[in-house]
Amino acid sequence: MCVVKECCIHDLHHSTVVSVKTCRLKMQSLQQKASDWSGVPTDDAFAIDDTNLFQKMGLQSFVNLSTNFYNRVYDDEEEWFRLIFASSEKENAIQNQYEFFVQRMGGPPLFTQRRGHPALIARHRPFPVTHQAAERWLHHMQQALDSTPDIDDDSKTKMMNFFRHTAYFLVAGDELKNQNQQIPFKHAAKRDDS
Amino acid sequence: MCVVKECCIHDLHHSTVVSVKTCRLKMQSLQQKASDWSGVPTDDAFAIDDTNLFQKMGLQSFVNLSTNFYNRVYDDEEEWFRLIFASSEKENAIQNQYEFFVQRMGGPPLFTQRRGHPALIARHRPFPVTHQAAERWLHHMQQALDSTPDIDDDSKTKMMNFFRHTAYFLVAGDELKNQNQQIPFKHAAKRDDS
Repeated sequence: MCVVKECCIHDLHHSTVVSVKTCRLKMQSLQQKASDWSGVPTDDAFAIDDTNLFQKMGLQSFVNLSTNFYNRVYDDEEEWFRLIFASSEKENAIQNQYEFFVQRMGGPPLFTQRRGHPALIARHRPFPVTHQAAERWLHHMQQALDSTPDIDDDSKTKMMNFFRHTAYFLVAGDELKNQNQQIPFKHAAKRDDS
Repeated sequence: MCVVKECCIHDLHHSTVVSVKTCRLKMQSLQQKASDWSGVPTDDAFAIDDTNLFQKMGLQSFVNLSTNFYNRVYDDEEEWFRLIFASSEKENAIQNQYEFFVQRMGGPPLFTQRRGHPALIARHRPFPVTHQAAERWLHHMQQALDSTPDIDDDSKTKMMNFFRHTAYFLVAGDELKNQNQQIPFKHAAKRDDS
């Protein structure tokens, strides 16, 4: 079901907004898709907020995890996946990731101080965040978590639930960029009459 | 300068990614535009993280501020602006806003528990976030802050800097949706040879 095409359209020339309730439905739908596709309910995904994982694990665990993760990604035997990251220096990718994780999991706002709002969907816009790519990302992250000994099992479970849900939130967000935001005004007007 | 069209393109049929450094430049550019257009340097925008404003102000101040703000917005004499919000119930708009502010300014993650990642740019995608709309939003927010007596002057200044910067971050983000993500593969391949 495509709801994006039915979304709010502002015709600046006519100073008219066609108000459509599906605007809000669209974002609820992203969240719903994230849960449906990942198999992780929202409550489980955001159980990372129940404990301060940064205080529990410390900065170095996050640095180790992201280093471990990107070592795998940049050496991936699957060329199609490896090449998604080829435009970034590995060191930058590592820093961007652990700074975001630290900030999101109870630590200082390192990412925002350097780069601003996370704006997760917008920042992934240049990349093909497909179901296949999400699964490959999660495969490497599971392995990275399993080979980072200073992360306890409960934190691993919480983090993987968050990662799984978020990966599919981004897959759902990725679909938006292929959909046309603009619809003909008469089309929108017709909806308003219905 | 348009850098978006030069961004990473993944040709799924050819299993090839053209890696382009402008991917990262694009997001730096959003952040840069936010500072340039708002006149608020990043450090000032995120000075809201220096103090826990939620602990300082308390939940009710945020509820009052957002109620005050949306009362003005939904009664705006400027129809073009008022109509942008016409697809949402005022009560929902108020709740979405104060839950995000509470979460972002040191309080519990109310927004995420109910709606998931903030994904600021993506969630504003249905709306026309123009320079003019940003200024009108900021006008009402300044008035709302000035008429919410339980917010001290230092917090008001910090919050307005955050709001100004963020409004223009979203204006910059809004431009993305009018730009085509896809470019012909031969075009991309040519870049790769250069």
